[in-house]
Amino acid sequence: MSDFLRQRMTATPAMITIWDDRSTLRHALAFEGALAECQAAQGIIPVRAAQQIIAAVRSMPVDPAALAEEVAHAGTLAIPLVRRLREAVGEGAAEHVHRGATSQDLADTVLALQLCGSGALLHADVIRMTSALAPLAHRYAALPAVGRTLLQDALPIGLGLRFAQWHAGIASAARQLRAAISRGARVQLGGPVGTRAGLGPVADRVAERLGLPCAAPWHARRGGTAAIGAALGILIGTVGKMARDISLLAQPAIGEVHEPAIAGRGGSSAMAHKRNPTGCQAALAATARAPGMVAAVIAAMPGEEERGLGGWPAEASLLADLCLIASGALAAMATVAEGLEIDEAAVARNLAVAGIGDDVGDSAALVAQLLAEDS
Amino acid sequence: MSDFLRQRMTATPAMITIWDDRSTLRHALAFEGALAECQAAQGIIPVRAAQQIIAAVRSMPVDPAALAEEVAHAGTLAIPLVRRLREAVGEGAAEHVHRGATSQDLADTVLALQLCGSGALLHADVIRMTSALAPLAHRYAALPAVGRTLLQDALPIGLGLRFAQWHAGIASAARQLRAAISRGARVQLGGPVGTRAGLGPVADRVAERLGLPCAAPWHARRGGTAAIGAALGILIGTVGKMARDISLLAQPAIGEVHEPAIAGRGGSSAMAHKRNPTGCQAALAATARAPGMVAAVIAAMPGEEERGLGGWPAEASLLADLCLIASGALAAMATVAEGLEIDEAAVARNLAVAGIGDDVGDSAALVAQLLAEDS
Amino acid sequence: MSDFLRQRMTATPAMITIWDDRSTLRHALAFEGALAECQAAQGIIPVRAAQQIIAAVRSMPVDPAALAEEVAHAGTLAIPLVRRLREAVGEGAAEHVHRGATSQDLADTVLALQLCGSGALLHADVIRMTSALAPLAHRYAALPAVGRTLLQDALPIGLGLRFAQWHAGIASAARQLRAAISRGARVQLGGPVGTRAGLGPVADRVAERLGLPCAAPWHARRGGTAAIGAALGILIGTVGKMARDISLLAQPAIGEVHEPAIAGRGGSSAMAHKRNPTGCQAALAATARAPGMVAAVIAAMPGEEERGLGGWPAEASLLADLCLIASGALAAMATVAEGLEIDEAAVARNLAVAGIGDDVGDSAALVAQLLAEDS
Amino acid sequence: MSDFLRQRMTATPAMITIWDDRSTLRHALAFEGALAECQAAQGIIPVRAAQQIIAAVRSMPVDPAALAEEVAHAGTLAIPLVRRLREAVGEGAAEHVHRGATSQDLADTVLALQLCGSGALLHADVIRMTSALAPLAHRYAALPAVGRTLLQDALPIGLGLRFAQWHAGIASAARQLRAAISRGARVQLGGPVGTRAGLGPVADRVAERLGLPCAAPWHARRGGTAAIGAALGILIGTVGKMARDISLLAQPAIGEVHEPAIAGRGGSSAMAHKRNPTGCQAALAATARAPGMVAAVIAAMPGEEERGLGGWPAEASLLADLCLIASGALAAMATVAEGLEIDEAAVARNLAVAGIGDDVGDSAALVAQLLAEDS
Repeated sequence: MSDFLRQRMTATPAMITIWDDRSTLRHALAFEGALAECQAAQGIIPVRAAQQIIAAVRSMPVDPAALAEEVAHAGTLAIPLVRRLREAVGEGAAEHVHRGATSQDLADTVLALQLCGSGALLHADVIRMTSALAPLAHRYAALPAVGRTLLQDALPIGLGLRFAQWHAGIASAARQLRAAISRGARVQLGGPVGTRAGLGPVADRVAERLGLPCAAPWHARRGGTAAIGAALGILIGTVGKMARDISLLAQPAIGEVHEPAIAGRGGSSAMAHKRNPTGCQAALAATARAPGMVAAVIAAMPGEEERGLGGWPAEASLLADLCLIASGALAAMATVAEGLEIDEAAVARNLAVAGIGDDVGDSAALVAQLLAEDS
Repeated sequence: MSDFLRQRMTATPAMITIWDDRSTLRHALAFEGALAECQAAQGIIPVRAAQQIIAAVRSMPVDPAALAEEVAHAGTLAIPLVRRLREAVGEGAAEHVHRGATSQDLADTVLALQLCGSGALLHADVIRMTSALAPLAHRYAALPAVGRTLLQDALPIGLGLRFAQWHAGIASAARQLRAAISRGARVQLGGPVGTRAGLGPVADRVAERLGLPCAAPWHARRGGTAAIGAALGILIGTVGKMARDISLLAQPAIGEVHEPAIAGRGGSSAMAHKRNPTGCQAALAATARAPGMVAAVIAAMPGEEERGLGGWPAEASLLADLCLIASGALAAMATVAEGLEIDEAAVARNLAVAGIGDDVGDSAALVAQLLAEDS
Repeated sequence: MSDFLRQRMTATPAMITIWDDRSTLRHALAFEGALAECQAAQGIIPVRAAQQIIAAVRSMPVDPAALAEEVAHAGTLAIPLVRRLREAVGEGAAEHVHRGATSQDLADTVLALQLCGSGALLHADVIRMTSALAPLAHRYAALPAVGRTLLQDALPIGLGLRFAQWHAGIASAARQLRAAISRGARVQLGGPVGTRAGLGPVADRVAERLGLPCAAPWHARRGGTAAIGAALGILIGTVGKMARDISLLAQPAIGEVHEPAIAGRGGSSAMAHKRNPTGCQAALAATARAPGMVAAVIAAMPGEEERGLGGWPAEASLLADLCLIASGALAAMATVAEGLEIDEAAVARNLAVAGIGDDVGDSAALVAQLLAEDS
Repeated sequence: MSDFLRQRMTATPAMITIWDDRSTLRHALAFEGALAECQAAQGIIPVRAAQQIIAAVRSMPVDPAALAEEVAHAGTLAIPLVRRLREAVGEGAAEHVHRGATSQDLADTVLALQLCGSGALLHADVIRMTSALAPLAHRYAALPAVGRTLLQDALPIGLGLRFAQWHAGIASAARQLRAAISRGARVQLGGPVGTRAGLGPVADRVAERLGLPCAAPWHARRGGTAAIGAALGILIGTVGKMARDISLLAQPAIGEVHEPAIAGRGGSSAMAHKRNPTGCQAALAATARAPGMVAAVIAAMPGEEERGLGGWPAEASLLADLCLIASGALAAMATVAEGLEIDEAAVARNLAVAGIGDDVGDSAALVAQLLAEDS
């Protein structure tokens, strides 16, 4: 029994599945299978051994709970998993399992696969948000509304300019995340000290087999994964920006926008009249947590010598957590964006009260420019 | 299916249990039961209703997985849990469930209970560490060894002085953590806006019933929980200090200390001759993650108005994670401290090579002073 | 020429003075003078040499700008400063300067002195804040006002309860800071590897001379200074909480409180009608920066062996910066608290609009309890 | 008098100059001059007024110390500076100064200019490092040396592979920083609420005049500057990685590499025989501080509405500090890389002691691949 309640408050089921034990084990075994297959193709190990390994990878039962105790004891997933795989393939092939590889090759490759899957999931919710915001931005591009600075009424804006700013912030951060994943989520295959001794010339093929880019071993060169962590944090920050604005604009005294009304959501355990910005809360909770995780990812970079002590295991947990909380934040705000209720009467009323005229300057042109940046 | 593999790499089973769903639900129901009982004693609700509520609290079945979906949807644990409890107690008593309380009363009180439990668990491993280190410090107080600064050989120290420094650092941080928990892990009972309207004069009694200190409502006054987070981070830092030193002293070229040899632990998936400092690695991974979590706890402090948006839900997750990684780090280093192997010949050999004499100054007196600080 | 503009935006002149070069050099020379005096009293160095050293400490001119280049080159303040001091005292006494001490003894003792001075300065602004808030809390303890949660109108509170919550948060954090400083700001005197070899039994006397507590050398045991950093961050967080609330309550659509009107402050370079919450802005800027600094202080804890590489120099800069930004935040909010304008009509109007009655529950009793916690 | 000693320990004189008051004021006045010039060209303000403004911008004396007090009081640089500029240009032109612009336009544009200057400075030290490391990597590509993992001897590597890994890490992070600066360091010109009302169609021209890219106003869309902060932190992390390795390899018991011997650097105030890795220390101190700054930059992202409260002023200070500590770290390690001493005898001796053979696998090919990534 684990902390599912806490986890589901902050992450989507789909993202939880990407990082759960079953997925981790599936990717880990896929790595071993791909390695054996490619080594056999190069004559590094016998074809028959590779076939036995691939068969075992597909069929061997693994009980995550039992394995977890061994993993905790050994301090690494690879050792107990490889031992079981060797037992499963039997005499003759056992010695060819995990040939030339090291624990971190397996761990980092699994991480890369999970990061790629996470990127695709997050992208889908980005598209939901930008697809919802773009028409709102266009529609309200020139509708005068109170612009507010330092939490004070200032001068008019085109209401859609605010939506376009959210859109541009999220779209740009999402582009950077995709770029960071395509640069940093690579196959890891270097062997114990990153020289590839004993592995054979298989890195390219293993990478292709697993659908990952290839790269020189990066056991202790973590700039690529650190950049993914930073990009996740920044994307969460752009979503947090939208959430902060919506929660401010939904204050009863302002009331210009509201989260969509959804049965069973946004209620209060004590006050039936309240309509809480629950989606914004989820996003802002993620926004509060993410920066410290990014700091830790960067702090973990200077690993010792060929493979460091403590840094990269921490990094994997941090990247998993960043993906998990990003999923919850993006999904919540995608739903908010899709159902965002705009109270035009309140917008007009607040503007009239502010007494600041209705000159929205270049709002419409800026909306067009901001939305075009993503096309 | 969740990420048990990842979690068990960083936390002990006992600490995982403290924060798991079953424990969370048990504490949440205990809160509702204590509230009803105390409100009945004050005549706020009928005694019979309280009896029905207490009976339901003890017997109602809760499936965490099913509840999790509702919790994620509602954005709070209290709403679906209170709804089920109301269904379970039936007509007549339902309206008296959760009387005058708010979701955050339940959430923060559960958090306080889990923090108290965590403190006790961590303390046990602190005692293991200090109990192991004190005799080593005494025994080797005046044994000359190379003192090293800026990673260079410097001048002699009494070898035990190093152990005494670890001891004093850990013992002091543990004292601060206990003090922070006794100050900051309090019952939360304020009602929706912290005025206790409708609750009745029951806060003291509910606190006593649950074994927690009472305090004025602290929904948006988070200095107490932030201090617990900081104390956890600092305690992890003192354990990380010991881990860093041991990993450096266990380098083959130095070889003055070694982690205990434990079957199935410290091995390499590729190099049978290696003896990896696996306990230190676990502690250093926690050391890499903790500071960012502390930052996030402090960043979450300025919640909006009477109860904020996003900050306190983030804080609860962060404190849970800090307790979890602290448990793994402390348990790993307690085992290391208890079995620490000291190679006196290597100590002497390195000292002779350094050619820096053997004047250990006041090492013995300082050892006595450092150990006495904890008595 | 340095970045005075940027610094003065975030720190008070008094706090800048505590951490400026002149103060650093004055404390550093005071350390050398106290060491010589106490060593002479113990017969470790000749009395005449000590007199020459003390005379030089008082009279030698030091040009910070010239010294800065040497310090940057040497990587430590002590080496060039001690060299100059040796030149100043002349033959015969030169060899007795800095006897048995190490660079970090000087650096950490200077840090401790600056932290003590900072604590006193910050305390004065805490007193300004609590002295201003307490009467407001009493006066408005039972005045009904809208209580707001999740940025939505919720139920009534006694307006003074909000002020009492700010008061209690700040007062408690300030107490913890004072306690942390008294525990962690100690003389550092251990010699190169912390054994006090060659120093003589002078640590207690040097500490007394400098007005600091004594302690066993803590070169690589940083829990005490880390706790000061955390306490600074938490104090800033409590001030940030008040700033966030005031900035929300000062929104034109709410208008319940306002920062005091001060000529030349709160203006806009473009909009003359605006009244910006400039004090809150200063506090919230500090609130944004502090948590990351606390994280770095904690991350720097696990220094290597007897004196680490990189951690403690970083820590000193971080603690200086935390004190500096705390000074600006506290001073700004002390001025805000002292002149806080409360618009009772707006309070009443908002309450009427909310239509939530006027039951403020136990607000008055809670105000009394919260204020009493600090007496 | 300010804290020059502390600053010069962590930053180069050239970088200090980029961020000092004189530079800030020069850029701020240049912004006002460019704005007036371009507005005159568009007929928004009279040509004669623009000439007066440009003349005043060039000749008006500004005393940073005096201005600092006003800036601290006003809470913004723009208000007192614009007021002085208006006084300097005299009647007739005064009203045309800062036409349509807002304080943050000035502040962010100055920030962008300083970031661009910082990027160029840092790039020069990156080139010094990569130019020094590439020939070392080639020369020693296949020389067998002990590869170390988890701080234990593992298997042989080609010595140059380690240098090539440093090279690739730094070069890649530097590329990302350049890209982030070119994306995120843009002119800011939006007016009070980002609509460009009253500014006229001058943004493109002002940008060109100042040598910056143009962009839609980004007052509250901080992903671009956050990405610069993250890229700075990651670059520092890659330099910290090199520093950590060198400090470990320079341990007397290993002795494979040493920082260059430089008179007056690396000494100890107490132990003449020591050779401290002072350059590595400077880099590691920066590595300890940077991650928390990156966290704060990301945490500051969700500014309120059109222009937020507290976030962006904090961000500017943080980016300045990141550039400053990056300069010190990169300069220190550039000097270390250029003079790195390699003790081939120690390399061979350690390898023989480890008894792990001399198979360096694909080290030479990997060196070529890693270096080519930057070509």
